[in-house]
Amino acid sequence: MGERTKFVLDENEIPEQWYNIQADLPEPLAASLNPVTKKPLTPQDLAPLFPMELIKQEVSTERWIDIPDEVREIYKLWRPTTLFRAQRLEKALDTPAKIFYKYEGSSPPGSHKPNTAVAQAYYNKKEGIKRITTETGAGQWGSALAFAGACFGLEVKVYMVAVSYKQKPYRRIMMETWGARCVPSPSKDTRVGRDVLAKDPECPGSLGLAISEAVEDAVSREDTHYSLGSVLNHVLLHQTVIGLETKKLMEKADVYPDIIVGCVGGGSNFAGLFLPFVKDKIDGTKPDLRIISVESAAAPKMTKGPFVYDYGDTAKLTPIIKMYTLGHDFIPAPIHAGGLRYHGMSPIVSHLYNLGYIEAKATNQVATFEAGVTFARAEGIISAPETNHCIRVAIDEALKCRESGESKTILIGHSGHGLVDMAAYEKYLSGQLEDYEYPEEKIKESLGKLPEI
Amino acid sequence: MGERTKFVLDENEIPEQWYNIQADLPEPLAASLNPVTKKPLTPQDLAPLFPMELIKQEVSTERWIDIPDEVREIYKLWRPTTLFRAQRLEKALDTPAKIFYKYEGSSPPGSHKPNTAVAQAYYNKKEGIKRITTETGAGQWGSALAFAGACFGLEVKVYMVAVSYKQKPYRRIMMETWGARCVPSPSKDTRVGRDVLAKDPECPGSLGLAISEAVEDAVSREDTHYSLGSVLNHVLLHQTVIGLETKKLMEKADVYPDIIVGCVGGGSNFAGLFLPFVKDKIDGTKPDLRIISVESAAAPKMTKGPFVYDYGDTAKLTPIIKMYTLGHDFIPAPIHAGGLRYHGMSPIVSHLYNLGYIEAKATNQVATFEAGVTFARAEGIISAPETNHCIRVAIDEALKCRESGESKTILIGHSGHGLVDMAAYEKYLSGQLEDYEYPEEKIKESLGKLPEI
Repeated sequence: MGERTKFVLDENEIPEQWYNIQADLPEPLAASLNPVTKKPLTPQDLAPLFPMELIKQEVSTERWIDIPDEVREIYKLWRPTTLFRAQRLEKALDTPAKIFYKYEGSSPPGSHKPNTAVAQAYYNKKEGIKRITTETGAGQWGSALAFAGACFGLEVKVYMVAVSYKQKPYRRIMMETWGARCVPSPSKDTRVGRDVLAKDPECPGSLGLAISEAVEDAVSREDTHYSLGSVLNHVLLHQTVIGLETKKLMEKADVYPDIIVGCVGGGSNFAGLFLPFVKDKIDGTKPDLRIISVESAAAPKMTKGPFVYDYGDTAKLTPIIKMYTLGHDFIPAPIHAGGLRYHGMSPIVSHLYNLGYIEAKATNQVATFEAGVTFARAEGIISAPETNHCIRVAIDEALKCRESGESKTILIGHSGHGLVDMAAYEKYLSGQLEDYEYPEEKIKESLGKLPEI
Repeated sequence: MGERTKFVLDENEIPEQWYNIQADLPEPLAASLNPVTKKPLTPQDLAPLFPMELIKQEVSTERWIDIPDEVREIYKLWRPTTLFRAQRLEKALDTPAKIFYKYEGSSPPGSHKPNTAVAQAYYNKKEGIKRITTETGAGQWGSALAFAGACFGLEVKVYMVAVSYKQKPYRRIMMETWGARCVPSPSKDTRVGRDVLAKDPECPGSLGLAISEAVEDAVSREDTHYSLGSVLNHVLLHQTVIGLETKKLMEKADVYPDIIVGCVGGGSNFAGLFLPFVKDKIDGTKPDLRIISVESAAAPKMTKGPFVYDYGDTAKLTPIIKMYTLGHDFIPAPIHAGGLRYHGMSPIVSHLYNLGYIEAKATNQVATFEAGVTFARAEGIISAPETNHCIRVAIDEALKCRESGESKTILIGHSGHGLVDMAAYEKYLSGQLEDYEYPEEKIKESLGKLPEI
């Protein structure tokens, strides 16, 4: 048998602490602002929505934060996850590059999302909360929170964007199988939902609207909190288990990445991978490390948006945060990578990009599926449409190595499998998949509505 | 952290040999017969269909058969698989029983099927074959062979039962993503398919018919062989990696099962688990070990059929084998556990059942989904409809332990996840799922058509 293609850790090597990049940032993050007063956000502002432990994590500058035993116990269901060397892909590309991927698709819902869903469910349960609300687009996040709710006996209510609710029943049924309630948004269950339905009974919904419904529901009940699947600092914190495991595994493999690539929607899966590595770039140990975030050309906040203060949702209910954004009323094209359609970017990823520690690329969806099919035929794993974005860029970098003869080490953040997204593959395979580029003039228009600070 | 809930092996502990039960059977298997001459089958009879190495394995009485390095290399993508202790399920059931499950859902197609698909593709490739044909019902097997074909650069053509082809597009798209061609059966690509379509252009197809098409295709081309996903001795042989790993892992966990349960269609996944254990019962080391096969009440060959010679397919093209059968023109009810609809049972499982080494139970589908939902909410994993059958029986045995106070060790053969079967869960959750029991009178009628030997 040839070189090792698989690197694993023992279950007692699941990290015992999350890594908090806020301890090592060269400059602190800009403060987030209250959406009404526009003054710096206080813990009290967030208390109706989140348990106090998560509010503390959001602003903590402690470098290491303990992972509760109860959370590690659930993590064991699929963690530590495997680091693969993609040797068959390397051969298929005839490249001297070494390609690795850390695979998060082995979790029960099939993605990295449970890394934070389980932690959030745990802290809510611990603080006496009985019920959590959230929104979901294509359903990856909603299904992860439904799974986490089942682990801790919490009621979960998911507001799913109506058009996805109808088009993508599988993720909804997954949520229901885990015992969650999932309704199409706009729904009759909230004031904001009823108002919209009164004007337009056929309204297809949007993520912004679904957030508004979930938040309204949460603040209207004492026993209920709200949960968010990306963007916030505590979400990225929980995802660092990915990078901490990867770092340990790459040490075992006796390699260090030259290039790290990951797809970005709100930024949490990719940040979870690169944050423990970017530390080495910040402290000067690895000045040449390249960290490339890959977004959809249909939602090009990093490559085409400005770094400004904006709302996290359409209805202006969430805090105002400093980020790369396309404007809070941005309406994405119907790309299959539902997880990459968000208008903004997490403050931490935005900040590090602004400081020059990471790069950003945008790719179009046809090219990403081409890469995904190449990957599936070589490595066996059918990847989520989101993941195909960074596989595309990894393949491009590996092909550059074929030209140059360099043997670079490329690390892919593989966020999940695509078995619930086969309809998108069918469109690609039958030549019906379209590309979408968000027009520059629309960005300008949308950015005219930024909050005045 | 509490007791261990997860037991894993290192990649160098993937078995180096398959275990061949034919070396340890108390009585040899009955000979299979040529379907035309009705004389004992010769290697020459099988040569148009299978590579010589597999034909040798089919009749070998060597106890250990080496697993080629190239096959182990692919196995590494998901093997060794994890043995879980289902502690949260035990708590949910309030049982003193210890429940373990060996999880095969982590393979790229999501089931145990690639254990043999990869081996079969390898031997065909090695003997110069360029193309493999097969049939598939719901698509688990077809997708596994498509994956294996991609691993070795073989063309794969899958004849998929037409009604499933239309109703279950996801598995077909998986096959196409891995580069296989998948057509609805009956198809225009074979004589037998064209004949059927001429009489009935809307024919929904059947597994028997799809086998006939795949066999006709294979024998008509020099560069093509045929591949079967269950029933045959060499298929069960390849699946013993499951049981060999489990045995090693249970030793590490310092337990030995009192009860092993697995679902059975053709019998390969369950045999793969129990064959390395049944050895201990045959040699008298573990006389009290209970091994329970769980079939669907809609296809009750073990619990209601006789142990007789019958054809493997409707069209009488396959060898005549001695097995528990409902008759080769048995037409199953449309249960969601597509993998359990076969009319017969592998000769090895049939033989061991006839000799009294294993037990058989049949369960109805509503009760199996109830068990599957309990399992999903406790353990996180949404199981395939087939797997839910043995989870039902495991839960029943665990509940008996609650009554009796016994702390039995129950081992479940978990054959795969159900993420591509969510439509079935929706039917269960919405109360629309029906039970089907195959009527006794139909069995009698169908058994009237057994071959005369």
